[in-house]
Amino acid sequence: MGKLLIVGTVAFDAIETPFGKTDKILGGAATYIGLSAAQFNVEVGIVSVVGGDFPQEHLQMLEDKNIDTTGVEIIKEGKTFFWSGKYHNDLNTRDTLITDLNVLAGFNPIVPNNFTDCDFLMLGNLHPAVQMAVINQIPKRPKLIVLDTMNFWMDNALSELMEVIAKIDVITINDEEARQLSGEYSLVKAAQKIHEMGPKYVVIKKGEHGALLFYEGNVFFAPALPLEEVFDPTGAGDTFAGGFIGYLASTHDISFENMKRAIIYGSNLASFCVEKFGTERMESLSREEVQKRLQQFKELTQFEIELG
Amino acid sequence: MGKLLIVGTVAFDAIETPFGKTDKILGGAATYIGLSAAQFNVEVGIVSVVGGDFPQEHLQMLEDKNIDTTGVEIIKEGKTFFWSGKYHNDLNTRDTLITDLNVLAGFNPIVPNNFTDCDFLMLGNLHPAVQMAVINQIPKRPKLIVLDTMNFWMDNALSELMEVIAKIDVITINDEEARQLSGEYSLVKAAQKIHEMGPKYVVIKKGEHGALLFYEGNVFFAPALPLEEVFDPTGAGDTFAGGFIGYLASTHDISFENMKRAIIYGSNLASFCVEKFGTERMESLSREEVQKRLQQFKELTQFEIELG
Repeated sequence: MGKLLIVGTVAFDAIETPFGKTDKILGGAATYIGLSAAQFNVEVGIVSVVGGDFPQEHLQMLEDKNIDTTGVEIIKEGKTFFWSGKYHNDLNTRDTLITDLNVLAGFNPIVPNNFTDCDFLMLGNLHPAVQMAVINQIPKRPKLIVLDTMNFWMDNALSELMEVIAKIDVITINDEEARQLSGEYSLVKAAQKIHEMGPKYVVIKKGEHGALLFYEGNVFFAPALPLEEVFDPTGAGDTFAGGFIGYLASTHDISFENMKRAIIYGSNLASFCVEKFGTERMESLSREEVQKRLQQFKELTQFEIELG
Repeated sequence: MGKLLIVGTVAFDAIETPFGKTDKILGGAATYIGLSAAQFNVEVGIVSVVGGDFPQEHLQMLEDKNIDTTGVEIIKEGKTFFWSGKYHNDLNTRDTLITDLNVLAGFNPIVPNNFTDCDFLMLGNLHPAVQMAVINQIPKRPKLIVLDTMNFWMDNALSELMEVIAKIDVITINDEEARQLSGEYSLVKAAQKIHEMGPKYVVIKKGEHGALLFYEGNVFFAPALPLEEVFDPTGAGDTFAGGFIGYLASTHDISFENMKRAIIYGSNLASFCVEKFGTERMESLSREEVQKRLQQFKELTQFEIELG
């Protein structure tokens, strides 16, 4: 069984979509990544930080999913990171209403002893200096390091971000961010430029339009499952990443062929995440449901054709 | 060998993209559909209208591709339909600069005798009254009728369009148009509503994001091939439709399984169309190149996964 360490936010989110509105609910990149990765036979641990206002029941829920929360520091006198956003009618774009960093502002990640020997490392979207601090605490380089990041760090901490990018194996990034990072409009060219920065594998997430995996001149595409209703896209990208690395860690196989399966699993899990508000769907999701939906992905994409 | 009749525009286009600009060059829906369908073993005929200004060499080029142009009426004293457009930097959106209907304004389509027994009928984007006039000239209902249309007719001739939609088997439409026609944002729901209007098969084109085929609760997805450079998207949708119906006509098989292959071929041919300005790439395209690119579509989409 693979050992997967995830660093990322554990947070409160307040979300407004055309379908409704929530108060502060459980959110954060590490939460979604963890819930998704925990769908596989893998030992999962989280490194994060929360405030004294964070309910024990949320940590208990993660523990009940076999997610080790030893690495989630609790700063009693602090407040948990809070994000609030409102989605536009098309659900493809959103406005950030509030970002209260709170305890995240001075976050000094500490990898717990039982995860310094992790063989899979997922660096969720965070300040690149925090991501680097985690890399530096793991004495034996993991078999695979996956990085998620966003345009905010390209704008505000590019040189630190580039140092992290040089050290990792897989970057997951959305299409606009890939264009910004590379200066190339074509995603094929963007992936080539990003390969040169370090990562052998480049995963470009296109939301409802699926995801592309680039590796040594090869490209593989996983569509998003067309859904009758998308309720709340929050966490879909993190859930995708969690399914991707969770599957790889559970199979201990980082070949390109297996990465294809991994992004199909990522897309599969993300398709559940958006069905309800926040983490609700991911909390109730069973492995049987995931396996059943795999069949839909096959029907969606597989064809028989004779090559002439 | 199937007999395929195409009705649509044969036109002059003047195109501006970030990569260059053309004078009046050969364009038109029927031109692109015909060039694409002619990649298959199928008897292709076009019904259209041009003016006295239309060069004989263009008609000769189509004839050299085994496209029967008997049904292309030449109005000596008239001018050929002219469209001019300018693409934005992302190539996904464009502004129409000029639309001179010219001979298209009074177009009264006449199906030539040698195509009244066609078994495949492609209704290219045109006034729905013209599309209906073609349907009415074919005594024995074709095995398959495919319709392409656009938002302009939804805005300006909706009731006539709905009459045509009720009579056809397959509609090809882009995502925004599917939403407009159905009043549903979700493409899954949009397809359901459109099925109820008549077509058993709904193909939703998403440009660089691929195409979806809906049929009796099933859905299949064909991605667009990620390209290093897209030079000119003009005609890509028509080329897609031409590849789709051309493949179906050549195989004489309208099962859902074969339609999957057909939209992969459509996507394949469209990926060539955008590589050069106007019809240039389609004019030089060989069947060997198309077959070779099929392998790329397989690599892009096919995976092996065990269902648990």
